[in-house]
Amino acid sequence: MAKRIGKHTIMLPSKPSIIGFASVVGKAEGEGPLSKEFDKVYTDDTIDGCPTWEKSESALHKEAVTRAIAKADLSPKDIDLIMAGDLLNQCIGTSFGIRELQIPFLGLYGACSTMALSMALASVLVDSQVANNAVASTSSHFASAERQFRLPLEYGGQRPPSAQRTATASGATVVSKHTENTPCVEAVIFGKIMDYGIKDANNMGAAMAPAAAETIQSFLNDTGTNPEDYDLILTGDLGKVGSELLIDLLKKDFSIDISSVHNDCGLMIYDLENQDMHSGGSGCGCSASVVNSFIMKRLQSKELKKVLFVGTGALLSPTSTLQGESVPGIAHGVLLSSGE
Amino acid sequence: MAKRIGKHTIMLPSKPSIIGFASVVGKAEGEGPLSKEFDKVYTDDTIDGCPTWEKSESALHKEAVTRAIAKADLSPKDIDLIMAGDLLNQCIGTSFGIRELQIPFLGLYGACSTMALSMALASVLVDSQVANNAVASTSSHFASAERQFRLPLEYGGQRPPSAQRTATASGATVVSKHTENTPCVEAVIFGKIMDYGIKDANNMGAAMAPAAAETIQSFLNDTGTNPEDYDLILTGDLGKVGSELLIDLLKKDFSIDISSVHNDCGLMIYDLENQDMHSGGSGCGCSASVVNSFIMKRLQSKELKKVLFVGTGALLSPTSTLQGESVPGIAHGVLLSSGE
Repeated sequence: MAKRIGKHTIMLPSKPSIIGFASVVGKAEGEGPLSKEFDKVYTDDTIDGCPTWEKSESALHKEAVTRAIAKADLSPKDIDLIMAGDLLNQCIGTSFGIRELQIPFLGLYGACSTMALSMALASVLVDSQVANNAVASTSSHFASAERQFRLPLEYGGQRPPSAQRTATASGATVVSKHTENTPCVEAVIFGKIMDYGIKDANNMGAAMAPAAAETIQSFLNDTGTNPEDYDLILTGDLGKVGSELLIDLLKKDFSIDISSVHNDCGLMIYDLENQDMHSGGSGCGCSASVVNSFIMKRLQSKELKKVLFVGTGALLSPTSTLQGESVPGIAHGVLLSSGE
Repeated sequence: MAKRIGKHTIMLPSKPSIIGFASVVGKAEGEGPLSKEFDKVYTDDTIDGCPTWEKSESALHKEAVTRAIAKADLSPKDIDLIMAGDLLNQCIGTSFGIRELQIPFLGLYGACSTMALSMALASVLVDSQVANNAVASTSSHFASAERQFRLPLEYGGQRPPSAQRTATASGATVVSKHTENTPCVEAVIFGKIMDYGIKDANNMGAAMAPAAAETIQSFLNDTGTNPEDYDLILTGDLGKVGSELLIDLLKKDFSIDISSVHNDCGLMIYDLENQDMHSGGSGCGCSASVVNSFIMKRLQSKELKKVLFVGTGALLSPTSTLQGESVPGIAHGVLLSSGE
């Protein structure tokens, strides 16, 4: 049974295993450095000719979930719960994507922290035997996000260097009871909303960095561990600007130096220089696809043994920004281990 | 520890208690038949002069959560997790409402099913000792919802008789370990997405009724119980049209007659005839405020002993409707008992 330690960390003594994972991505993501890691790269962001970007995102989401379940040697009827969400208004990327699968559904909204949130919750529910098999998933699509949060693509708007690109990607994880020699989840932490008063919606990394710093320091503090105890502290997705800020904040406010073990999904998914991706990737699907490909495979091969994955989300809407509000951030953490 | 029975039902043997609850509502709700049941009735829907409807909704949400925590004789720092959401794009009613409380936050999206979803999840997490004290909450606001989902109030649009009115209301529940003689949660069920192809976004009741029918019949089937075993099977919120359809669907498809024990939060919150409220109330805050006032008080006084509360949500967005999509529904259930 789950055990709370310190202030916020939840240890999962049964160490639920990741028995299936999958990631599917769009064209630009397939041209990035992780190209060979994904289960499927679509060559056209319509995702096999869907008539709208929203339907494309739903198709992407469904594909990731279906593949993850199949890779776990299960079928949708074997899944007790799916917890999932996305960035679109009312999370329609998810609801229309998974409706045919007929799995009891727990809808989540954590902005770009949704993969960590869903994975943390799925692990907790498997640990406490609420579910035998649970799916965590999320998606994002560059074109549906641009239209909704910024401007339709046709407008040809320019973006500042601090802007991140919403990844066209989806990732899904199947969590089940502990299985030997399989990547597993040892602990989770749910974050608090942090708001440092950043008002620039083109600089989400800066808005989310304080939340990431808070969650990472809480986790290290609660568990009595140091950055060196991890092979990787992986944020998703702060991009270039936010990652630098996170490292500075942790040094300055908490005397914690994560620089030697830190990476960020938004920095990994694209070749920033050659793909002209400004500050890096973002969107729920970014960390979802990076974790459910490159990271899980390295945990399987034991190249990575302990990974603290911290998903970060900016809890704003275009309306709140127009109304002069700041950008609140949140970060949830999942301690992944290779399961030795 | 939680125990799955049948196909989808989760029994909570520790029977977590509702140690605090609160509801705050707007003007029209305060003029309805439940007027005296709420903790606070605002006389002006700006909620003490907030400059935008979205900020009004956030203020309402914060008030409900703060009151529920205070009524549980706790302070925000005693709460391990809050799970909450609302109808606004990116759930800003919630994130801006609760950010100052600094409670680890699990964002949910279940449309109008969010109160049942959050209460079910909070109960499960307390039962499995993931949280000692957890808050479940949600809100909605007539004016912010009209602007976002339909038309700004200034337009003066007419609504068909099947339309429901989004309640200006918020409700919050504090769940904690079992305490004698206190309302408690005995079981929960998370629903599947049901889509009967309804395309009329002004007839949400009809779109959600199949989901409610599915969840109710699953729960009765899993637990081997009959409608007569409950003092009340309470949906939230199908309104007049959806409630009639639910009763018919259960009779026709499953030979289950709930007509003598059924009521709907959307029918309870307004005086439909005299307040000209068409098919009744809706919005996350409708069931949140009815359950966290009238229902909890009747469970406390033991006038009601067993209540199956089934929250229903329509998982659409204005975009999905414009793109010709149908309206998928979902329903989550919570078995409340007087805790004898």
